[in-house]
Amino acid sequence: MNVAVDAMGGDYAPAAVVEGAVYAAREAGLAITLVGDEKRVLEELKKFPHDNLLITIKPASDVIEMGESPSLALRRKKNSSIKVAMELVKSGEAAAVVSAGNTGAILASSIMILKPLKGIERPTLASFLPTAKSGQMTILVDAGANVDCKAHKLLQFGIMGHAYAQYILDKESPKIGLLSIGEEDNKGNEASREAFQLFNRSGLNFIGNVEAKEVFRGTADVLVCDGFTGNIALKIGESLAEMFISAIKGAFSRNLFSKMAYFFMKTPFQELKAKIDYSEYGGAPLLGINGICIIGHGSSSSKAIKNAIILAARLAEKDLNARISQEITSRLGIQTVPGKKSAFLSWIRPYHQGEKENL
Amino acid sequence: MNVAVDAMGGDYAPAAVVEGAVYAAREAGLAITLVGDEKRVLEELKKFPHDNLLITIKPASDVIEMGESPSLALRRKKNSSIKVAMELVKSGEAAAVVSAGNTGAILASSIMILKPLKGIERPTLASFLPTAKSGQMTILVDAGANVDCKAHKLLQFGIMGHAYAQYILDKESPKIGLLSIGEEDNKGNEASREAFQLFNRSGLNFIGNVEAKEVFRGTADVLVCDGFTGNIALKIGESLAEMFISAIKGAFSRNLFSKMAYFFMKTPFQELKAKIDYSEYGGAPLLGINGICIIGHGSSSSKAIKNAIILAARLAEKDLNARISQEITSRLGIQTVPGKKSAFLSWIRPYHQGEKENL
Repeated sequence: MNVAVDAMGGDYAPAAVVEGAVYAAREAGLAITLVGDEKRVLEELKKFPHDNLLITIKPASDVIEMGESPSLALRRKKNSSIKVAMELVKSGEAAAVVSAGNTGAILASSIMILKPLKGIERPTLASFLPTAKSGQMTILVDAGANVDCKAHKLLQFGIMGHAYAQYILDKESPKIGLLSIGEEDNKGNEASREAFQLFNRSGLNFIGNVEAKEVFRGTADVLVCDGFTGNIALKIGESLAEMFISAIKGAFSRNLFSKMAYFFMKTPFQELKAKIDYSEYGGAPLLGINGICIIGHGSSSSKAIKNAIILAARLAEKDLNARISQEITSRLGIQTVPGKKSAFLSWIRPYHQGEKENL
Repeated sequence: MNVAVDAMGGDYAPAAVVEGAVYAAREAGLAITLVGDEKRVLEELKKFPHDNLLITIKPASDVIEMGESPSLALRRKKNSSIKVAMELVKSGEAAAVVSAGNTGAILASSIMILKPLKGIERPTLASFLPTAKSGQMTILVDAGANVDCKAHKLLQFGIMGHAYAQYILDKESPKIGLLSIGEEDNKGNEASREAFQLFNRSGLNFIGNVEAKEVFRGTADVLVCDGFTGNIALKIGESLAEMFISAIKGAFSRNLFSKMAYFFMKTPFQELKAKIDYSEYGGAPLLGINGICIIGHGSSSSKAIKNAIILAARLAEKDLNARISQEITSRLGIQTVPGKKSAFLSWIRPYHQGEKENL
């Protein structure tokens, strides 16, 4: 099991990425290929004892920066670390790829190089959301890969999220909810109201609309929305959590008494902090791509990278994509006979007439 | 200055509403008309000394419940407290209306009875967001009144938010931002990307896209988005804040030591709590309606109602609507000559061709 890691992706790359890879190789015994500027990667790697680790370097001369336009960058930088890492998965040299780089470039190159799974229109980014229930997580699809989504795309996200939740949350029949602005089926925007009807007939364990105020109560195992809403919801949560942690730190450092108080409160507050710390979850998989691809947070620490690599290996080992393909086929009825036109989505077509189908 | 208050609207109505009205009449010397079930309202009113207060009761026999379908309820319940309160504003008997009832019913009846201001397509709900900067608030438009919004509607929300911010935040040139998923002008969904170009040419102090992670940093004075996204962003924040407060309470009540620690930490944590307590802000005005209308949170406490009434009176006194009309006219160039077709939005028409204009 070899995982290709984009060593140049992320705000603290290559240092944090190489360090994370060393930890993952050490703790999980994984084979890792670090893709990027050979000299700089080797420099970082030398800081750690790594002779017994299964780490190799695959040179890639170009780096796509975080702020670059994905389409332009991919056209100009033919030998980027993101692209070379994807190609390792395509050729079968690696079972999965991890990158904390430019999300748009990762998404675009995964579609170009690895291609979507049969029957999938667009891959979806599946992120974890912490909940108030101890040890319980919610999966958010889409967390930012697709901005404008019609109802049938939301249904596909839900089906992929269902398959992912079965594996990662270990639930046989995960509860699927639509993120919306009211519980009733007539609440929501055009796409979500239409999707409500599609989910109702999907055979999934659909629990209906989930209001934003319910998100952190762990009501749903999988929460479905378009990537614009999902990304904003995710980042609002992230930034508010940061704000609280900094407010708590501020409160405890006010004076001698509050510093004393911290002595007694350290454990519960560190538990709270750990719960909302994204680095615990590592990264978000891009579901629906012909290969396992984990996108790390731009500001990934070495710990986040380590967890992302371990998650990637785990999903590859469990063959998540076979499971997703099976779900899509059985729930949406794709004909896989070669040469025949796909009957994909035929039963939901009346709901999205007028939209160009790109299958 | 008389404010009509829907005594039957809200989870704790009429008790909390009547109590809030008493406080507002007492503290701000306002004249208030409580609209609703005469017997029940009087019963609540009798709990407070009110002989010297300018409080009257206007009977309304019907109550629209929180879960009811707005359109159905408004058709069936001809004498609802929401409707009767709106009519007091329409007839000039009241300068403003406050309700913490069914948001959809308030919105629909305000459009039907008070009508949108000239040049406004749809009113927008303007909510406050707390920021990490001490004493600084951000105004969110739209906070949930309009789910699917084309670019030119977002521009209207921004112009109304601008006028409101000038009054309420006391800033001459409030910073207007578009809530989006990246800073660059090509980031966002279809509507927000188009709106970016419209705002750029609007003459407003447009600061571009604001990422969700920047929301609580007070980057923008006015944050513009569609009501689906806005409502979800608002409620994600609200519920996360609740979760934190309950986690903090839990942490402090663990054992004797943590209870002692709370003794020293009480003040800073109560300050933090106050900052994120919606009841401090009272309610959200519906901007763009021919009359001042404040929508309170469903779970409004008496304090929230009091603050909503005072906000309503303040906006009526300052004649916010004249200011909004002036901004709309000067920035979008409406011809107000009677009989002539409105030239409204003529310069932005190329950006939203194909959409039915309902002016």
